[in-house]
Amino acid sequence: MTRSFTVTARDPVSSARTGVLETAHGAVETPAFMPVASQGSVKGLTHAVLEELGVGIILVNAYHLFLRPGADAVAALGGVHRFISWPKPVLSDSGGFQIFSMSPLVKVFEEGVRFASHLDGTKIFLTPEDAVDVQAKLGTDIGMCLDYFPPYPATETTMREAVERTGRWAARAKRRHETRESPQQLWGISQGGVYPDLRARGIETLMEIGFDGYAYGGLGLGEPKSQLFEVLEKGDPLLPRDRPRYLMGMGYIEDIYEAVERGVDLFDCVLPTRNARNGTLFTSRGRISIKNVKYAADPGPLDEACSCYTCRTFSRAYLRHLFERGEIASAILNTIHNLHFYLDNFRRIRQSIQSNSFSLLKKSIRSESGDSKEETT
Amino acid sequence: MTRSFTVTARDPVSSARTGVLETAHGAVETPAFMPVASQGSVKGLTHAVLEELGVGIILVNAYHLFLRPGADAVAALGGVHRFISWPKPVLSDSGGFQIFSMSPLVKVFEEGVRFASHLDGTKIFLTPEDAVDVQAKLGTDIGMCLDYFPPYPATETTMREAVERTGRWAARAKRRHETRESPQQLWGISQGGVYPDLRARGIETLMEIGFDGYAYGGLGLGEPKSQLFEVLEKGDPLLPRDRPRYLMGMGYIEDIYEAVERGVDLFDCVLPTRNARNGTLFTSRGRISIKNVKYAADPGPLDEACSCYTCRTFSRAYLRHLFERGEIASAILNTIHNLHFYLDNFRRIRQSIQSNSFSLLKKSIRSESGDSKEETT
Repeated sequence: MTRSFTVTARDPVSSARTGVLETAHGAVETPAFMPVASQGSVKGLTHAVLEELGVGIILVNAYHLFLRPGADAVAALGGVHRFISWPKPVLSDSGGFQIFSMSPLVKVFEEGVRFASHLDGTKIFLTPEDAVDVQAKLGTDIGMCLDYFPPYPATETTMREAVERTGRWAARAKRRHETRESPQQLWGISQGGVYPDLRARGIETLMEIGFDGYAYGGLGLGEPKSQLFEVLEKGDPLLPRDRPRYLMGMGYIEDIYEAVERGVDLFDCVLPTRNARNGTLFTSRGRISIKNVKYAADPGPLDEACSCYTCRTFSRAYLRHLFERGEIASAILNTIHNLHFYLDNFRRIRQSIQSNSFSLLKKSIRSESGDSKEETT
Repeated sequence: MTRSFTVTARDPVSSARTGVLETAHGAVETPAFMPVASQGSVKGLTHAVLEELGVGIILVNAYHLFLRPGADAVAALGGVHRFISWPKPVLSDSGGFQIFSMSPLVKVFEEGVRFASHLDGTKIFLTPEDAVDVQAKLGTDIGMCLDYFPPYPATETTMREAVERTGRWAARAKRRHETRESPQQLWGISQGGVYPDLRARGIETLMEIGFDGYAYGGLGLGEPKSQLFEVLEKGDPLLPRDRPRYLMGMGYIEDIYEAVERGVDLFDCVLPTRNARNGTLFTSRGRISIKNVKYAADPGPLDEACSCYTCRTFSRAYLRHLFERGEIASAILNTIHNLHFYLDNFRRIRQSIQSNSFSLLKKSIRSESGDSKEETT
């Protein structure tokens, strides 16, 4: 296991920290946000725009690429970086979440999971070893273990089984991973829902096996925010301080501040990109639904405080017009804005931690906006 | 009428010429290609990409903007340039083509045309004066007269009526245009189909009225190419040499070379952008349908000879993957390539005319590709 993560600063009054995550395709400053490129493309943007926005790492879905064009096809084209022509770090989700959330006819065995492709119903049997092999073929910088989580909400008994099986699967994944000489990292995913003891058990099991990084899985599914934050709070002292922590699939910026405060380093979420395509835009003064008729004659920018291309160049009236007409430029410009909003918050988070002012920044964000609320006008 | 067009070079062996078209928002080098931005946005691209591609002028549709958001709404937002945040020249089509091709229940009177909005069936009556007023409110650099053309193919009798009515409407448009002090140019559109005498009559009528530029309308509707080229050949000596000529709505690059040879200066067409979204790509070796399975494992660029962002960066395999997955990036990257292909041809056309080598270039284009043909492999 290579030393692939270095903490560079710690907030004196919380568990927030900055770090540098080293990968085979370069370093990523943390806390970091990974835009989601399920099929190898962040919806609405070219890689050139991602680079301009300062994106340091993206996430691809092993599940989607495994189905089409297939892991062998990607390998034959030189791996995912060459296939998609993205030279920077890439993390692949193992496919667990997609299998358990998208596929019909899922049946879990100790050996692995059987599911039907959501595309054509083809029956597929995937083991934890297969998931490692698929990601090795993709050649991502960071692969994730195949985890198992039951539908939310799960009883404590069901969740205990899930935690134990996820642990056994993680151990098998690690063994398979060790059969290769590769710069690819393998990270573990803890389950346990919001049951404190089970989550602790999940984390401890992963740590006994030993991974390059540790993810919180199975969260953001509808549990109360207070319980989610409690999971992170209790996980923080359990996890090794010198390893990166990744909160999978979340979330609103205000929740991300809470997670950073509790020691999380890495995030991914479709929220900024998917909302952009639906016309929901994050601003420093709250959320905007650009389809609202009140913007039809509004010559101002989306967000006075924003320096992105969209806000520098276009009016709300034009952005509403593009959205209403179904123009592709609507998806592009809205995505540029929302991703810039996220990445800019992460830049500010990193700077504030390095200057010992994270809690001040967090307080100002909460009072000025709360991005899950509608814009105050 | 201001002197708004200057011929800068003439091909010694044909009617091809280069020129500079001056407008209130800057100059355009001709022969020029106008990407179509029907609703104020070139489908698939941001203005930033248009600028990078070297686009000098775009076309908007008065018909679409008249329906939504409305000419008054655009005027209230400061005109089309401010509304869409595009600082360079804009030409507006009058709406004639859209009315006669998209609207149900069209009825033509001497006074004007009655039609139903293709959106909600609202009955609209539009006169040639209204079309001038709408475009004045939009504030485009070049407005077009409302023309009338019958469905193709039209009998000679029907076409004669269309030519005469289009002439009377052009005179009324000119009178309305002259009531304003404005830098906006007004260009006339000749009808006449492929009937040489009627086309000549249409052109002569427009010239008696006097316009800043002259367009060929009602072509590219399915008539044989030879007849189309004959129309341009006979129109060439009739039209004033010191005024720009515009062939509306066409076409394939090989046809554009023919038209340039016959003295045409300005073009617009949805072909590069619409084909891009449909996965049909123009290359120096012919057309490619990127959805073809033979590209699934092809690591090469779309076009070895192309220097666009798409060809510099991505493989055919990835472009096929994006198209098959319905990713927005497919539309973006394909559109960048196809528009670059068109604009690059126009750059080469201008350079060749200035260096007295247009006919050589034209010959090499025809032998090396013929872009309406499938790629030769």
